[in-house]
Amino acid sequence: MSPPRSARRSIGRPPQASALDARQQLLDAALTLFAERGAAGTTIAGIAARAGVTPAMVHYYFSNRDRLLDAMAQERLREIVTGVWSPVVETNEVVPMLRGLVQRILTATEVHPWLPSLWLREVVSEGGQLRERLMRILPLESVRHLIGAVASAQRRGEVSPRLEPRLVLLSVLGLTFLPLATISLWRALPLLQGVEREDVARHAEALLVSAFSKPARWRAKPT
Amino acid sequence: MSPPRSARRSIGRPPQASALDARQQLLDAALTLFAERGAAGTTIAGIAARAGVTPAMVHYYFSNRDRLLDAMAQERLREIVTGVWSPVVETNEVVPMLRGLVQRILTATEVHPWLPSLWLREVVSEGGQLRERLMRILPLESVRHLIGAVASAQRRGEVSPRLEPRLVLLSVLGLTFLPLATISLWRALPLLQGVEREDVARHAEALLVSAFSKPARWRAKPT
Repeated sequence: MSPPRSARRSIGRPPQASALDARQQLLDAALTLFAERGAAGTTIAGIAARAGVTPAMVHYYFSNRDRLLDAMAQERLREIVTGVWSPVVETNEVVPMLRGLVQRILTATEVHPWLPSLWLREVVSEGGQLRERLMRILPLESVRHLIGAVASAQRRGEVSPRLEPRLVLLSVLGLTFLPLATISLWRALPLLQGVEREDVARHAEALLVSAFSKPARWRAKPT
Repeated sequence: MSPPRSARRSIGRPPQASALDARQQLLDAALTLFAERGAAGTTIAGIAARAGVTPAMVHYYFSNRDRLLDAMAQERLREIVTGVWSPVVETNEVVPMLRGLVQRILTATEVHPWLPSLWLREVVSEGGQLRERLMRILPLESVRHLIGAVASAQRRGEVSPRLEPRLVLLSVLGLTFLPLATISLWRALPLLQGVEREDVARHAEALLVSAFSKPARWRAKPT
């Protein structure tokens, strides 16, 4: 079976290139729609329409919904997640590690505006359709490195022993992805109006840097 | 119209009491199912079945789905949200304020195990069916007090000026509700196994206390 005519989107360009385009456009459309409406609310027909191709094209490139979800995770999310996490191993110092994570997360969400909402809907929410797939592409080496760096800082007495190294990953996500994914909701409150993406990044970085910089405040902390 | 017979659940108790029971049981069932399956995946019939009554009973007590959602917000969530937030105004010091918030959130999620998942599904997620209703019952006075206390601490040079007072509310939620709602997901990672609710509370409290205690680390922070 050769690519449907509708795959040839730009006259004059080799089918190879335009077929590649169509496949990429379908992945873009799927990621955007999953973020906007959720996977459950997104049909193959809707993805095709958003990409400006026929539903047959979706089946041609991904054969079924599971293969499409696999491609979203393997061909798109893996690269983003790796880009955000892998540099973590370049330092053993917790503060630059966390600062880098926050900055790379903000950059990733600038390049891929659908990312925070997709994360909220399809990864952390019960029944999220990208949940297991994302867990499989998490760079565990980097997560282990972060956990180890925090534990070492605790042993050196630089960081509060009341902090839980295994929860630092979740803290970074909760201070970046959560507000970025829900910023429009909170802007509805007059009290929180005018909060921008840059404020989220600056705040998350300042909060983490303050908490993980020595001298650890816990020395002065009453119990 | 008098309460359907099925409302009289416990023989010997006055109809008044049992009718009240049935109404409360329906609210409990609805909140639990919304947390487990999401509002979109929960039918009136399913709520009735979970509460052990007939669907007619749901219509009898709440007339329609919107009234049921109103009752969930007004008769259940309002009390929980107020209990968590209103004590905030009892102090002007940020650290005890944040410590109290984390502790009350943990207690609320112990008493109401469905709370974190309901928050994630129906409040912060796009299209969440309790979203607007929850925004309406947020105790804005307490939120304003928290924002003001952080801003004052910044003016006194006790807290990093890079922190965003309007985002502290979201930070508290991101460090408590998010991990509590997703703890089962993360436990699937061997690296994060064994993390308990108490760890989440201790970690969130330690992180916030460290970040909002003076002397603020930002003085030493390189840029």
